[in-house]
Amino acid sequence: MARVYNFSAGPAVLPEEVLKEAADEMLDYRGCGMSVMEMSHRSQMFADIIETAEADLRELMNIPDNYKVLFLQGGASQQFSAIPMNLMKNKVADYIITGQWAKKACQEAQRYGKVNIIASSEDKTYTYIPDCSDLPISEDADYVYVCWNNTIYGTKYNKVPNTKGKILVADMSSSILSEPVNVEDFGVIYFGVQKNVGPAGVVICIIREDLITDDVLPGTPTMLKWKTQADANSLYNTPPCYGIYICGKVFQWLKKQGGLEAMKQRNEEKAKLLYDFLDQSELFKGTVEKKDRSLMNVPFVTGDKDLDAKFVAEAKAEGLENLKGHRTVGGMRASIYNAMPKAGVEKLVAFMKKFEEENK
Amino acid sequence: MARVYNFSAGPAVLPEEVLKEAADEMLDYRGCGMSVMEMSHRSQMFADIIETAEADLRELMNIPDNYKVLFLQGGASQQFSAIPMNLMKNKVADYIITGQWAKKACQEAQRYGKVNIIASSEDKTYTYIPDCSDLPISEDADYVYVCWNNTIYGTKYNKVPNTKGKILVADMSSSILSEPVNVEDFGVIYFGVQKNVGPAGVVICIIREDLITDDVLPGTPTMLKWKTQADANSLYNTPPCYGIYICGKVFQWLKKQGGLEAMKQRNEEKAKLLYDFLDQSELFKGTVEKKDRSLMNVPFVTGDKDLDAKFVAEAKAEGLENLKGHRTVGGMRASIYNAMPKAGVEKLVAFMKKFEEENK
Repeated sequence: MARVYNFSAGPAVLPEEVLKEAADEMLDYRGCGMSVMEMSHRSQMFADIIETAEADLRELMNIPDNYKVLFLQGGASQQFSAIPMNLMKNKVADYIITGQWAKKACQEAQRYGKVNIIASSEDKTYTYIPDCSDLPISEDADYVYVCWNNTIYGTKYNKVPNTKGKILVADMSSSILSEPVNVEDFGVIYFGVQKNVGPAGVVICIIREDLITDDVLPGTPTMLKWKTQADANSLYNTPPCYGIYICGKVFQWLKKQGGLEAMKQRNEEKAKLLYDFLDQSELFKGTVEKKDRSLMNVPFVTGDKDLDAKFVAEAKAEGLENLKGHRTVGGMRASIYNAMPKAGVEKLVAFMKKFEEENK
Repeated sequence: MARVYNFSAGPAVLPEEVLKEAADEMLDYRGCGMSVMEMSHRSQMFADIIETAEADLRELMNIPDNYKVLFLQGGASQQFSAIPMNLMKNKVADYIITGQWAKKACQEAQRYGKVNIIASSEDKTYTYIPDCSDLPISEDADYVYVCWNNTIYGTKYNKVPNTKGKILVADMSSSILSEPVNVEDFGVIYFGVQKNVGPAGVVICIIREDLITDDVLPGTPTMLKWKTQADANSLYNTPPCYGIYICGKVFQWLKKQGGLEAMKQRNEEKAKLLYDFLDQSELFKGTVEKKDRSLMNVPFVTGDKDLDAKFVAEAKAEGLENLKGHRTVGGMRASIYNAMPKAGVEKLVAFMKKFEEENK
């Protein structure tokens, strides 16, 4: 078996160690005689799995006791509706638009109330993060919404926006657990797990307790009301048990790696290898402002579509997979999540050097 | 490794062959160098997986071309909202209440329109299926709703209700693929996969095309609108890829077993072993009317709570797991889904005989 280096933006690479454990336990989880897929979600065995996963996530992120952790379904896209449905008391919200996912979230919220776009980087194809030090926050805003790391465009907030006291809601799908964040700066942090944590089909919401109430918009489906799942410890109905089990293994793996400070250091090293090369290359160039660069998603272009396509094809032949950029940016994108080893980035940079030699 | 016989009502036993294949392919799916968990949902490899799964399900169930097959998230509980949101044009629906899940679906629908309970077996703790040959169908009903097999109570419809021309919607979570059904009798068939098909976190909806429209209730979340997912072939956002992959393997396994006619025969044989024993036993008795017995879920009691508990504990020690009944019925319940081998039912019946000898 030859594993490739998989630079997919998501679903994405998982730690090999986690996959090996999952394979070993597939027919018999720790001597219980069945797979985790076959276990009742009401069993003690599964209770241990989900409770350990939550405890490990709390430890990794240093989540305060007055925040709930919910394991849900439907992806971030479903939270695009759940967020206004649960939070819009005044039916007003402020959105900062830094890419396609923030825009989609905003469009969905517009169906439920008045939405103000208080900052945007759409003018320059989302190649930067707007200055958020003095935003025109709406007086009656129920919350301010951001997408923390922009998977498609390769930008990331490096400073918490000044919301002037309003609740901050952040989609952290593509940067979660890549470095520490101060949970208390946020009312809601949520993320689809399929980029940096586990298999698609689980979305985790970290929500300050006072924001979880029965006072939701009329017509909110019971399953989209956060309180439904908070009151039932994410077991209102059958949760995506196997996905939660894999997430739990990734949390354990992260603890073994040294936690989020260690991951941040490792991710900065990996990203630096690639950005340093891009900054001196005559063939390739990064597409976003240096100050706003993502540690996870690195888009780059040659400026020549045919050459971009040649690069992607030749890289694939070398076992460097899924380097094609998103259609709205073009060129290439290397997603270098937690589970991408440094050796993968080194191999990519070496290949880029060779390609540049051959094609300049 | 010793696999147990797992009589869990769901999540439930899966075919050992499927689990073995999944374990073998965990780190490297068919030479592509990555796990199915790590694959982009936009990749050709995943397209092949989901398209093959759909084609196999269509073949197994003989699904007509004018029905869409959607792979969704959120479980049946989320469809409890999606169904009225997508179908209530007149804001009227008729529900038949044959157990807790039909009741929950009904309660959720009541939040969106006028709901008439046109038949119920609540008077006798859901131990039978009401006569549905001449129901008081509402003239302006948008649909008639049934739960086809009642997991908790162990009953099953053996005849399609006469809806007098109205659309029939059926939750088939706990009987799907256990025997043939005539899809054309239904407007919507849907099922959470975690009982008879795959790991929790996937719900499959089979919907007649003319019922998939933009004309949904105001405020319907984009993700709950069937048309969103129908237009995107279930790839509007990242689907629960790994769960779909396992479902696909189970569909292949069912085809190898000879399809649904063969499964029906096998399931009838398995159920007969258990029901025949119950019918002559002096200690154990089945809890539902014979004519309405489920092939999948078999509740039974001794009439003595302490003896029931002793039975469950001693059965567990023999590798017969998860036989405790639902709290609302008490006693025991053996769920004998497709993947439960006949040998498992034989071992259970042998153990029941022995237990009866020792405790009568």
